[in-house]
Amino acid sequence: MVQRIERLKSVGERENIDVFIFTSASSLKCFSGYYYNFETGPSPFQLLPAALVVVPDQFMGIVIADNESLTAPVPGIEVSVRKYASYVYEEPLDFTNHFLIQLHEMLKQIGMSKARIGIEQNTFPYVIANSLKAKYSEMEFVNITGEVSRIKAVKDADEIKNIRKATALSDIGQSAVIKYAQAGMTELELFSLVRLEIEASVGTRIPIMVDLVSGARTASGGGIPTNKTIQEGDLILSDLTPCFNGYWGDSCNTKVIGKPTSGQMKTFESVKQALNHAISAVRPGIKASEIDDLMRKHAGNFPHHGGHGVGTLYHEEPRIVRYNNTVVEPNMVIALEPAIYEKGFGIRLEHMVLVTETGCEVLTQFQHCF
Amino acid sequence: MVQRIERLKSVGERENIDVFIFTSASSLKCFSGYYYNFETGPSPFQLLPAALVVVPDQFMGIVIADNESLTAPVPGIEVSVRKYASYVYEEPLDFTNHFLIQLHEMLKQIGMSKARIGIEQNTFPYVIANSLKAKYSEMEFVNITGEVSRIKAVKDADEIKNIRKATALSDIGQSAVIKYAQAGMTELELFSLVRLEIEASVGTRIPIMVDLVSGARTASGGGIPTNKTIQEGDLILSDLTPCFNGYWGDSCNTKVIGKPTSGQMKTFESVKQALNHAISAVRPGIKASEIDDLMRKHAGNFPHHGGHGVGTLYHEEPRIVRYNNTVVEPNMVIALEPAIYEKGFGIRLEHMVLVTETGCEVLTQFQHCF
Repeated sequence: MVQRIERLKSVGERENIDVFIFTSASSLKCFSGYYYNFETGPSPFQLLPAALVVVPDQFMGIVIADNESLTAPVPGIEVSVRKYASYVYEEPLDFTNHFLIQLHEMLKQIGMSKARIGIEQNTFPYVIANSLKAKYSEMEFVNITGEVSRIKAVKDADEIKNIRKATALSDIGQSAVIKYAQAGMTELELFSLVRLEIEASVGTRIPIMVDLVSGARTASGGGIPTNKTIQEGDLILSDLTPCFNGYWGDSCNTKVIGKPTSGQMKTFESVKQALNHAISAVRPGIKASEIDDLMRKHAGNFPHHGGHGVGTLYHEEPRIVRYNNTVVEPNMVIALEPAIYEKGFGIRLEHMVLVTETGCEVLTQFQHCF
Repeated sequence: MVQRIERLKSVGERENIDVFIFTSASSLKCFSGYYYNFETGPSPFQLLPAALVVVPDQFMGIVIADNESLTAPVPGIEVSVRKYASYVYEEPLDFTNHFLIQLHEMLKQIGMSKARIGIEQNTFPYVIANSLKAKYSEMEFVNITGEVSRIKAVKDADEIKNIRKATALSDIGQSAVIKYAQAGMTELELFSLVRLEIEASVGTRIPIMVDLVSGARTASGGGIPTNKTIQEGDLILSDLTPCFNGYWGDSCNTKVIGKPTSGQMKTFESVKQALNHAISAVRPGIKASEIDDLMRKHAGNFPHHGGHGVGTLYHEEPRIVRYNNTVVEPNMVIALEPAIYEKGFGIRLEHMVLVTETGCEVLTQFQHCF
């Protein structure tokens, strides 16, 4: 069995859960492979989130809109699919009802009665909860949000494959920044070239989160590209977070157009050292908080996290923050992003690493060169 | 009072509703002005949807993440803001709890006790429903999804202003397609230029939904741009749907690279006629279904809706479909998009109109020229 389903099964046994029902985009992708690829968020033709029903070892089924499909199933996981009439034009919209009929049919199929149902309470729609309560009076909901985020922190091989591709896209973007950035173009013009290079390498549009700022804007650590013109001597901070097949990549570079000042050079070296020390330290057994401390020892106390896990969410466990005593394990994927923000400029450098049995492998492969 | 709040008040009186609580992105924008502008969907730093509490004539308050703000308030609407600690790095995440504390404080402030609460059941998170039920045992939820979509169909002046700007962005995009499209470039390369022209005119990244396909791909009516190279003689179908300040614009053009065949020319004229007849027919009193019929009389029975309302959602009421007997009213905004899909090519032409007292004004202003 796929390891993450195995871990879900353990949660079920420990919490006495009979059935899991997932509706968050992240868990749908993680446990079934189902993913929608609209850059602007959920598909406009999907009027309710899909619902994934899991009884570990026994059944996995998903209810999705009639215009969608299980495009990227997880190898080794069999998911039964039921579709509901969603954004149709032939007859009055009644998608909520159609959705609930399919979900109830699926639950009948697995013989659910007085079940304890594991859900993620923040993303579970009231309409589904209400409909289930009306049908199954002895049913109970159990919130398993925390357990699910811990399961997701350790990746299976198929997930690492997707993450490798996403980080390669991040590399392509960082190379494009170095190739194209020059004084006289706007941040948006630069971003346009970077985005095209990433998208052309995939062959289609993909979601890309981005900070791309220049000059004094780097001092606040980020922001969306604008019409600001890049000047000679500006720093350019590019934090590129593309999504491939539902998994994210993440890296950040800061480079200078022209010659850095000696102060900027020194700051760059301090951040780079902080990053290198953190990379050297990452191994099974170290605590997330220790990695965070190490970076702040070299870079000072920058005003954001030292890093975060990356997977079906761009920020997930293990969060690299001072209060997090989570112990690092093999197959966690972690982005490390120390920074120094000074008056007038800021430098952040970020790599993503995969925790191995003995240390870690750096996944993003471009070089931070100032 | 802003008209849409006035109409919400009427729904409250009719349905005996004491308090409305909205959590859908569309209703948050429509009733409070609150909007998040991440192209990839909701902000990654907003871990629960915002919640808007409305007691018409008496109170409006919103609970939002601490890193967000009410950036574009609706003129004439005063909204009290409470923030919850969301994606912080200084202390363990407990955003759900922080969110619920703020929401309960707000409800205490308005003296809510055994209320009937109007909600949109598909987007209302279970965690909020459950927490309210635990606190207010005599509370009841009333699903007002249908009423809200009818309220949204008729626009206030401030909304029309935003929609005019969004349609102007769509015009800029269509002009860019005509300016840049040529044989030898890929669909993605063309899209990159179009998107940059739109974004540069705003000065920042914005969400843009798009169909941009060429050649035989036009026969299926749409799709995301790819690495397909545009050839001499290809049709290019560009359906551009940019979002400005939470409101959408929408238009579609189909143009030919080089010379059209006589068959293509004839098809183009039929679709254009269908669109023109529909525009001439739109006025208060006509039914949505009649507009749909009219287009199909000229263009034949294309396999999608004849159009749709546009506002904080890109597809909303009034849906222009054969079963919809909704009567058109002044200040509705409607996209009309007749099409003919043949073997090997397809043509769709779309304009957005604003219903006036006597007819309609075409909002998208570019010319459909083949």
